[in-house]
Amino acid sequence: MALVNEHLLKLPENYLFTDITKRINSFKVTHPKTNVINLGIGDVTRPIPQVCIEAMQKAAADLGRVETFHGYGPEQGYDFLISAIIKNDYAARGISLDPNEVFISDGAKSDTGNIGDILRHDNSIGVTDPIYPAYVDSNVSSGRAGTLENESEWSNVVYLPCKIENDFIPDIPERRIDIIYLCYPNNPTGAVLTKSELKKWVNYAIDNDALIIFDGAYEAYIQNPDIPHSIYEIKGARKVAIESRSFSKTAGFTGVRCGYMVIPKEVTAATLEGKRISLNKMWLRRQSTKFNGVSYITQRGAEAIYTPEGKKQVKEMISYYMENARLMKRMLNKTGLRFFGGENAPYLWLKAPGNMTAWKFFDKLLYEAHVVSTPGIGFGPSGEGYVRITSFGDRHDCEEGIRRICQCL
Amino acid sequence: MALVNEHLLKLPENYLFTDITKRINSFKVTHPKTNVINLGIGDVTRPIPQVCIEAMQKAAADLGRVETFHGYGPEQGYDFLISAIIKNDYAARGISLDPNEVFISDGAKSDTGNIGDILRHDNSIGVTDPIYPAYVDSNVSSGRAGTLENESEWSNVVYLPCKIENDFIPDIPERRIDIIYLCYPNNPTGAVLTKSELKKWVNYAIDNDALIIFDGAYEAYIQNPDIPHSIYEIKGARKVAIESRSFSKTAGFTGVRCGYMVIPKEVTAATLEGKRISLNKMWLRRQSTKFNGVSYITQRGAEAIYTPEGKKQVKEMISYYMENARLMKRMLNKTGLRFFGGENAPYLWLKAPGNMTAWKFFDKLLYEAHVVSTPGIGFGPSGEGYVRITSFGDRHDCEEGIRRICQCL
Repeated sequence: MALVNEHLLKLPENYLFTDITKRINSFKVTHPKTNVINLGIGDVTRPIPQVCIEAMQKAAADLGRVETFHGYGPEQGYDFLISAIIKNDYAARGISLDPNEVFISDGAKSDTGNIGDILRHDNSIGVTDPIYPAYVDSNVSSGRAGTLENESEWSNVVYLPCKIENDFIPDIPERRIDIIYLCYPNNPTGAVLTKSELKKWVNYAIDNDALIIFDGAYEAYIQNPDIPHSIYEIKGARKVAIESRSFSKTAGFTGVRCGYMVIPKEVTAATLEGKRISLNKMWLRRQSTKFNGVSYITQRGAEAIYTPEGKKQVKEMISYYMENARLMKRMLNKTGLRFFGGENAPYLWLKAPGNMTAWKFFDKLLYEAHVVSTPGIGFGPSGEGYVRITSFGDRHDCEEGIRRICQCL
Repeated sequence: MALVNEHLLKLPENYLFTDITKRINSFKVTHPKTNVINLGIGDVTRPIPQVCIEAMQKAAADLGRVETFHGYGPEQGYDFLISAIIKNDYAARGISLDPNEVFISDGAKSDTGNIGDILRHDNSIGVTDPIYPAYVDSNVSSGRAGTLENESEWSNVVYLPCKIENDFIPDIPERRIDIIYLCYPNNPTGAVLTKSELKKWVNYAIDNDALIIFDGAYEAYIQNPDIPHSIYEIKGARKVAIESRSFSKTAGFTGVRCGYMVIPKEVTAATLEGKRISLNKMWLRRQSTKFNGVSYITQRGAEAIYTPEGKKQVKEMISYYMENARLMKRMLNKTGLRFFGGENAPYLWLKAPGNMTAWKFFDKLLYEAHVVSTPGIGFGPSGEGYVRITSFGDRHDCEEGIRRICQCL
């Protein structure tokens, strides 16, 4: 008989979002006429830039004529998009990359999940805590995470707590870890790392022969000019870091699906016998075997992000969300509630009053303010006692939601 | 130090296509003015149906307005596309499927590769031979295939030979195998299975508690009304078979990337302790963890395939390729060369004259006819002594290529 991958069975079924939905539905049954505002939303709401739409419409038309038809594209992505990425996201910051160090994909979730395919099942992993759950979940399914020891901790995962005490900046671990996931600007806390803080991590990885998987999905939200946009702004990072980026939050591509991963040629991992292997080559081999590239139409749309008009439209979109965040913060500031983020990220991380748990605070906001948030415990053990709210909503909803929260506090 | 997945290192680097390219380049250096016709091409060349292009352009426009914006879609795919698939590809043939038995994806290569994520690493696998290499390659990378014992055979893979002697219809294996890959209409031989032949496989799987992964990527090319289009036309298949489909060859979507996989709720595999687990649930969990759905634009394009106008345009495209195949076969018939396929598939499988090897025949066609083919040995050990040519080219190229082949024989 065929046998299943039992590691995948360890994964609780969408407990977080199922629980949230259940509670919202219970509320709605008892309060059928109440207008609930969702500030828990992790998806963008603004339309994507017109310049991208026009590029995709033109690309679609290309596929309708023999002369301009495009069939299978390169698994790694089209040169036109790779060049635009290198020129604008990297060369402009003094980072030089070779075209075959950039791999276009259908998004950061696929990339940060699938990267596990090229790594051994028994590497140790470390994550900042709280964190975007997909990193851990994909490691659970390949057996790297061990077993679930309580509701939110896996036995083989090293959690690096990010709390008020350390300003949500994780301490460098005392033991060595094989693979470390960093996401900055951070989801869910909204924290960022300065150059000197990020440098500590790169040095740790060099000293400990560790691999960093750096998720820069929220890079476009950085407002402070001193915050690094790429881990490759740090010397030595080319040897130890893979960087994942996405157009989802940059240009509203959550429904279009496009991102990319940078794997410099110097990044290696080892065989059991100690031979160093280039992860760039390994990833190309993985992608060539199990992936057939991203839609030509999508890639043309992503390319348009880098035109002057595209950059302008992206900037306006980011400004809209960051203005939401600014307004939300200004209102929350008057309440005495402790909260974090929203400066260089679309996320606000709210500390529950007193010793209230994350779920209790979630319920309070739902029942008293009629606002949906995301309980922090869903992002890991250090998320207990927090909820995340986002600035991705419509302006009016954001303001009204926060007004209600302020009122109930 | 981080360790690599050493199974992936076992995979020879694109040996087949690298070798082909090398040989073509060598030829071109010595024959710079010769016009080479490529009949080895596995990609479509006709533009995609206008109705799909218009649907994608409209969908792109939807993303440009707040009122019609679509962000993250359901990981499993939009209901509008799933409904169209069920209604047209299944219900029309008397097969009833539940909407959550269909999973939209970015193509069959991803699906047939990633399906391994939900299965244990030590299942035994069987493939018809010759076969599309990605099935075996993805199993190599997860450790299921064992080691490469000669240039084209893996130690833990059961090869089911398809040769002239058995009319390219594989015999039911004498031993039991956990997972069997079947692709019909077949790439590369062009063979099809009748209902009674396919029934033998379903019965084998039921009797041996095996899992069939049925790749129906070329379903649209079936001309003979007696040939089953789906494995679910066979009684009992819902318990033992997963079916993969793609819009790549049906509607020219190779550059757009869309396909789907059907996993009926009754299909199970077991834990080590013998507990039966629904693979449908396992796959949903896998997709939710490592995938974020397919572009809304792409899914609207695929939906249009099922409109009356879409069906008409698809039919015209398939007819074009099958008319190529018919013309090619008619010309080849006069040469005395033995060849197969091209009746219900876009592939012709040419037997090399005498005891000539696949590579020798490839070279002969390249140097004497100036035609590129694909050496059969690249598809597995039983492909030795054959080359594959396809009808995906332009009409003129197909005719001229075959004319030259006929002349050199």
